[in-house]
Amino acid sequence: MHVNHIFARPVAPAGPRRGAGLGEVRLDGGFWGALQETNADATLAHCQDWMERLGWIASFDRVADGTTAGAARPGWQFSDSEIYKLLEALAWEHGRTGDPEVNATFEKLGSRVVAAQDEDGYLNTCYGHPGRPPRYSDLSSGHELYNTGHLLQAAVARLRSTGRAPAEALTDPFVAAAVRAADHVCREFGAGAREQICGHPEIELGLAELGRALGEPRYTEQARLFVERRGHGTLAPIALLAPSYFQDDVPVRDAGVWRGHAVRALYLAAAAADVAVDTGDAELLAAIERQWTRTVERRTYLTGGMGSRHQDEGFGDDWELPADRAYCETCAGIASVMVSWRLLLATGDVRYADLVERTAYNVVATSPRADGRAFFYANPLQQRVAGGEVLPDEVNPRAEGGVRAPWFDVSCCPTNVARTLASWQAYTAFTDDDAVTLAQYAPGTFRLTLHDGATLGLHVTTRYPHHGHVHVEVTEAPARPVTLRLRVPSWAGGATLTAPRAAGAGQGDPQAVAPGWAEVRRTFAPGDVVALDLPTTPRYTWPDPRVDALRGTVAVERGPLVLCLEAPTAGSTGTGTAPLDPAGVRIDTTTPPIASGDGAVIRAQVDAPPAHPAGTPPFTSGPPAPSSSRTRELTLIPYHRWAEHGPATMRVFVPARGT
Amino acid sequence: MHVNHIFARPVAPAGPRRGAGLGEVRLDGGFWGALQETNADATLAHCQDWMERLGWIASFDRVADGTTAGAARPGWQFSDSEIYKLLEALAWEHGRTGDPEVNATFEKLGSRVVAAQDEDGYLNTCYGHPGRPPRYSDLSSGHELYNTGHLLQAAVARLRSTGRAPAEALTDPFVAAAVRAADHVCREFGAGAREQICGHPEIELGLAELGRALGEPRYTEQARLFVERRGHGTLAPIALLAPSYFQDDVPVRDAGVWRGHAVRALYLAAAAADVAVDTGDAELLAAIERQWTRTVERRTYLTGGMGSRHQDEGFGDDWELPADRAYCETCAGIASVMVSWRLLLATGDVRYADLVERTAYNVVATSPRADGRAFFYANPLQQRVAGGEVLPDEVNPRAEGGVRAPWFDVSCCPTNVARTLASWQAYTAFTDDDAVTLAQYAPGTFRLTLHDGATLGLHVTTRYPHHGHVHVEVTEAPARPVTLRLRVPSWAGGATLTAPRAAGAGQGDPQAVAPGWAEVRRTFAPGDVVALDLPTTPRYTWPDPRVDALRGTVAVERGPLVLCLEAPTAGSTGTGTAPLDPAGVRIDTTTPPIASGDGAVIRAQVDAPPAHPAGTPPFTSGPPAPSSSRTRELTLIPYHRWAEHGPATMRVFVPARGT
Repeated sequence: MHVNHIFARPVAPAGPRRGAGLGEVRLDGGFWGALQETNADATLAHCQDWMERLGWIASFDRVADGTTAGAARPGWQFSDSEIYKLLEALAWEHGRTGDPEVNATFEKLGSRVVAAQDEDGYLNTCYGHPGRPPRYSDLSSGHELYNTGHLLQAAVARLRSTGRAPAEALTDPFVAAAVRAADHVCREFGAGAREQICGHPEIELGLAELGRALGEPRYTEQARLFVERRGHGTLAPIALLAPSYFQDDVPVRDAGVWRGHAVRALYLAAAAADVAVDTGDAELLAAIERQWTRTVERRTYLTGGMGSRHQDEGFGDDWELPADRAYCETCAGIASVMVSWRLLLATGDVRYADLVERTAYNVVATSPRADGRAFFYANPLQQRVAGGEVLPDEVNPRAEGGVRAPWFDVSCCPTNVARTLASWQAYTAFTDDDAVTLAQYAPGTFRLTLHDGATLGLHVTTRYPHHGHVHVEVTEAPARPVTLRLRVPSWAGGATLTAPRAAGAGQGDPQAVAPGWAEVRRTFAPGDVVALDLPTTPRYTWPDPRVDALRGTVAVERGPLVLCLEAPTAGSTGTGTAPLDPAGVRIDTTTPPIASGDGAVIRAQVDAPPAHPAGTPPFTSGPPAPSSSRTRELTLIPYHRWAEHGPATMRVFVPARGT
Repeated sequence: MHVNHIFARPVAPAGPRRGAGLGEVRLDGGFWGALQETNADATLAHCQDWMERLGWIASFDRVADGTTAGAARPGWQFSDSEIYKLLEALAWEHGRTGDPEVNATFEKLGSRVVAAQDEDGYLNTCYGHPGRPPRYSDLSSGHELYNTGHLLQAAVARLRSTGRAPAEALTDPFVAAAVRAADHVCREFGAGAREQICGHPEIELGLAELGRALGEPRYTEQARLFVERRGHGTLAPIALLAPSYFQDDVPVRDAGVWRGHAVRALYLAAAAADVAVDTGDAELLAAIERQWTRTVERRTYLTGGMGSRHQDEGFGDDWELPADRAYCETCAGIASVMVSWRLLLATGDVRYADLVERTAYNVVATSPRADGRAFFYANPLQQRVAGGEVLPDEVNPRAEGGVRAPWFDVSCCPTNVARTLASWQAYTAFTDDDAVTLAQYAPGTFRLTLHDGATLGLHVTTRYPHHGHVHVEVTEAPARPVTLRLRVPSWAGGATLTAPRAAGAGQGDPQAVAPGWAEVRRTFAPGDVVALDLPTTPRYTWPDPRVDALRGTVAVERGPLVLCLEAPTAGSTGTGTAPLDPAGVRIDTTTPPIASGDGAVIRAQVDAPPAHPAGTPPFTSGPPAPSSSRTRELTLIPYHRWAEHGPATMRVFVPARGT
């Protein structure tokens, strides 16, 4: 197998579709290009600085030095995984830009990790060394295999982004360490050995991708074993949590919906999709598709966010989608993208790309602050009380607040954002047979290699998502028909496409294209232009009536962006600038929202609260009437920008008049 | 001080009002009398059996025998408190009936507790003995002083219900042990000693009441010290929880509202009210009244339930009152009754009695199953998915389900229900000066002693809460004017009262009485009748529009009872008996609810769900329309009876047409 770092990508299934390689796409500014630059310039170093400061990286040094005994170990039992996710981000970033400084940072940090590995391949700073609990003594909560899974994912990123062929893999010390760790896991947890699983799925993902990267079926098989073992109630219970918390209640192929801890459910589903594709297990793939469908239709927020409960960071029941206590963990959004991307490559079904878009713009992009040095952990759709200010030097509790925090006690999200943004361009396009599909829109240069080695070169110009015009110029094409496929998002009724007529006959007229894939099959010539126009007029969106928590409200969307009403910036035209209490706003949905900046202006009644029942709970014997009411025009902003200027109250779903 | 067990009552403030003694009131069947009988016949033994079986009681034996080393201790660090709450329940039950068997049970169980006490008064089975962590080594989570507080409350019940004067107190071995424990706490945690607090308030309550029972100001002072020390951030943090979790964020007298873990907040408030009354601290009392008011008006459910979040078993923000994820822990309802009862005795304000009623009927009475052998821990106002069946021999997780469970991993609620029901009659009436006030209505015999030793005897006949007629016959009265005060609940617009005219002039005409206290001052003669008529026609109740989770819904109440729509019993007249999905019901509020059985019948549209958006989250670009709709009449039942016949779906707040 020849490996070329141009084709490096996080997901490499055996199926016919291949995601774009890091080196096949170069984003040129725009929404995602800017996020990638900030990630490179600020977030990577930010994460490393915090983990040095807190001693999480030094935990590896202590194991290497044999000085664990008697010293308290800082951080949680899963802090190793944060270093691995940072390493994965550094590897992708190096693959994206080739920056030798990034490579040096990877190598230096990676060598500290490698130095902590035991002779037999075991690598963990929390267990298995003097003064620490024994190896694998707490599979339910210990996160040992979870950590190892992230180690393997980081090694996959390293292996792919440095372009080493499998046979040369062991020449990279970090990859070699990961191979030893994977072999250790296969020995310890293989068939006939310790037939158990880890409380937090992730080892399955690492093994599946390492198996793909190295062409090593033993790793795929071990991933398969872990997937199949889950759901039989073998994990020791964690106090106050049910087996569904770690998906040990129902076997993966029998489950109908995702449940329990959202990140665990989604990492497991992503790995199950990998296993299903690589082993040709159509039943397992169908199970994941079925779970995706029911979960998306009944347990997913308008933002694409997943996870309705703080208690167990988990999914709720069907239709349990409260705006204010939405957990919608950033990591769950990232994991959802991981699942949908795998299903997209496995099936080609456009709905998976639609959900990637929804989640990317409204969860993943919402997490990092504009400067890349603070992050949302939870992504609620309503903030009733403005969060407190965050001190830049504080470790923050993980989920409360309503302000982005520089670092968390449990700090899984910042490094997850970093590794996702560093590899983001790989999620924008894929090829299959002689087609190139643009799944996500971003300005940039695309040079994708087709199945026969020919190249289709594209230059995309767009101000998406703020404008719906996507201009695709062909820069290079084989002298034979190929297919260019563009995604018409599910929200984009009334879209049109223009494409060149037959060679030399000029540009065609705009054609209506329905949501789904719009295909143009031509013998393209350099200079040909395919243009897609997606209507990004702001629009009202209503919740299903079974979503009790959102009854009587509407949201406003614009293109792929969910908008929100944020108190400090909720402008008012003509009626003064008094701070707005979003609690009293009722949208007049007979007046359509009007585009304004990157958001929209809506007309609303703003009510003063009703007279208060004194000394009784807030319920009255007749319909409550506002004590006063006036009409105002209010500005909504993209949800991903909320709280950028400090603590704020906010709501995505705004009460509607007469609904 | 003379102590007479007739006057035994859980709360004995220094103020002018005195709650009815256990022996001054004898309930004669009815709603609460029946609950008391079931508690006596089933619940007390049920609790003891479970705690024997799980080894929680044997933990005391092991300490007594000196065999703690090497043996794992079953249960949580707070399991001692369950034995103490059971002992408190047994003591009150013995005081209620004088049953010698109950007394024997108390003495036998109590002696096992006493045997585990250390020489210096320390008494705890989880800490401070061989193989266990040292005493007071984890004040944040260890619950040592919490356990001791319940020990003291049990001793107060014993002391009062056996009628021993303070000087004789030490002749009861259990009381003597509690006194040694209280002295130990004063030595260890007094001024100048270890100036710390326990993560879970409760010691304050035990000390305050023991101080009252024994006339011992040192205990009151120690309670005061604990109350004042809290709120200064001295407790070591618990991972992932904020200082507000255990009310260590703001000093008690400075706080504006209850927050954090609801039971902790409420036990603390109850103790602060005790301290405020007994030390004449008007500022502190005003603070608790202010916190009560804001919490009731913005953070309390229609049922009186408190606690909106599962995550920390805690209060939410103002207006955060989701029906489905309402925690409304049974213990928080009981604690709320404890606070309101204290504030009622401190101030005489009727609103506190109103909240006691609301909470008693709709939280406290909801917890036990009709047979007294299973309990709700959480009391949500909506169950979207019917809970699973509970096996009678299983220890259940504490909060999920939607079915009453026989016992819980954390099993604070069953014994709390038991001690509350065993002393319930003490909450029905109080005296002050020459007045007797009926605060709660129940059929029974009342013989209350007035300030001058005279007795006012009353015989109450009523089918309350199912019927609003309360018939009060005077059976004994001094030959001078006294005041009989009856509560007109806040929900009872249109109530009327009839009372005897001047002596010998017969019964007067019905007089309209407004919500509040209705007073009759007369020289009563035996045979005189005062009758109150409270309209218990079912009525709609609307949520404040700021309660986002309940927008567009109404509830139905009938008298003090909150009703609910339960799927298995939701009757249908004329349109078949297909199982009803409460998700599609919309009440027609132009048709009033009609009384039916102990519930009501309402007219509603029942909608089939709208066409489903395929493969996208449950949101649509236009207002969703039901795929079909028909009119039905549906029966609502009292909320406290829901799920009596097994798992069910249920909702208190039902969507309303056109609201």
